[in-house]
Amino acid sequence: MLLSEVESKLKELGVGPSSEKFPYYTLPVIADPSSDPNVKPTYVAESFAIALYLDEKYPTPKYPAIFPSGTRGVQHLLVNQYLPSLITILFPLVYPKLPQFLDEVSMAYLRRTRSPEIFEPLPKEEETKKREEAQNKFAGIAKSLDFDGDDSFIMGNQPSFIDFAFGGIFFTIETLGSAQMKLIAQWHDGKWGNYWKRVQAIEANSSQVH
Amino acid sequence: MLLSEVESKLKELGVGPSSEKFPYYTLPVIADPSSDPNVKPTYVAESFAIALYLDEKYPTPKYPAIFPSGTRGVQHLLVNQYLPSLITILFPLVYPKLPQFLDEVSMAYLRRTRSPEIFEPLPKEEETKKREEAQNKFAGIAKSLDFDGDDSFIMGNQPSFIDFAFGGIFFTIETLGSAQMKLIAQWHDGKWGNYWKRVQAIEANSSQVH
Repeated sequence: MLLSEVESKLKELGVGPSSEKFPYYTLPVIADPSSDPNVKPTYVAESFAIALYLDEKYPTPKYPAIFPSGTRGVQHLLVNQYLPSLITILFPLVYPKLPQFLDEVSMAYLRRTRSPEIFEPLPKEEETKKREEAQNKFAGIAKSLDFDGDDSFIMGNQPSFIDFAFGGIFFTIETLGSAQMKLIAQWHDGKWGNYWKRVQAIEANSSQVH
Repeated sequence: MLLSEVESKLKELGVGPSSEKFPYYTLPVIADPSSDPNVKPTYVAESFAIALYLDEKYPTPKYPAIFPSGTRGVQHLLVNQYLPSLITILFPLVYPKLPQFLDEVSMAYLRRTRSPEIFEPLPKEEETKKREEAQNKFAGIAKSLDFDGDDSFIMGNQPSFIDFAFGGIFFTIETLGSAQMKLIAQWHDGKWGNYWKRVQAIEANSSQVH
C-alpha cells in the first residue's frame, strides 16, 4: 500500500483517525477476526490502543502482558511526554535517508504533507552536533537504567510497551541508517546493542495466538 | 541553618557533594545512627541516593519499599530526564515569592549564586502564558495517568519515589504560592488535588523506624 492510500483504505474499513486533535490515519492497524464468520473483524488503530486491546482480549497469565499491572499510565506518559524529546534529536539524523527507501509516489506525498526540508541532508557540522546531542541523551538514559543492572528492560525485568516503542525507534534507525545504529549499539559499553538484541529476540520468539 | 552554611556544615560532617559534575552540597542529608555508640552515623545526601540507601538498609517486606522491584531505572529516568521539563515551567510562577519566605542572608546568597532575575515578579502577560503552559502540561500527564484509574500513583497502585518527587514540587508550590496550588488542585476534575492529598497522607501516616 502507498502511504497516500492509508487514509482512504482505513476509512473504507471503518477505522477512525489515530488522533483526537488531527484527523490523521496511521498504520499499524490490527484486524482481530470474529469467532462468527458472518461478523467482520474488529479493527484497532494506533499502537498504544492496540496494546491495550490485546491485553484486554488476550489476558495474562495465559498470554504475555504488554503492560505489567498498574503501569499503563506511566508508560503512556513516557511514550507521549518523554519519547518525543528523544525522537526530535534522533530522526533528523536518518530522515534524509528516507528518499532512498521509499517509492516516488509516497515520497511526493510526504514532501507535500511534511516540511520538505526535513528530507534534505544535514550540513556536516550540524550532523556532528546532532550526533553528540543524541549520544549525550542516550548516555543519560543508560545511566538511569544502570540502576536496574545490565540486562533490564526499561520498566525492569519484564519487557513491556515502552520497550517496543524504543524498538520502533531503533528499527527505524537501523533501516534508514545502519551505520548510525552500529554507533548507538557501541555507546555506553554496548548497553544499547545488547538491549536492542534482547528486544529483537522477543519479536523473533513470539508465537502467534491461535 | 542558613543556606550559605550548608556546604561548610556538610564538609564538616564528611558528606560529599550531591553532583559528580558540580561540587555543590544539598539538603536533605540523613544521619543513620550506628548500632555501636562509638561509631559515627552514616551520612547520605541527595534524595535519590537516600531512597536507595533506605531500601537496602530497611528492606521490604518488613519495611515499605520506596522502589517496587526493578523500577529504580525508570524512576531515575523520570526524575532526571523528564521532571526538569515540568519544573522549568512551574517554578518561574513561584520563585518570585521566595524573598517573602527566606531570611535576608540566604536570599543574598541565592542572588549571588543564581541568576538574580528569577526572583523578579513576572510581567502579567508572561505569568498568564506560563500558567496556561503549566495547565496544558499537567493535562497531558493527567490524561496519561487516567489509564490507571482515578486513585493511582504515578507508577500504579503503590506509591514510590516518583510520587515523593511530585510531592516535593507540590510542597514547594503550596509553600510559596498557595493560590497557585489551589488552581492546580482543581485542574482535570480535581485529579491533582486528590493526588496531592494521597501523597500527603503517606507522610502523615508514616511511622518512624525504631
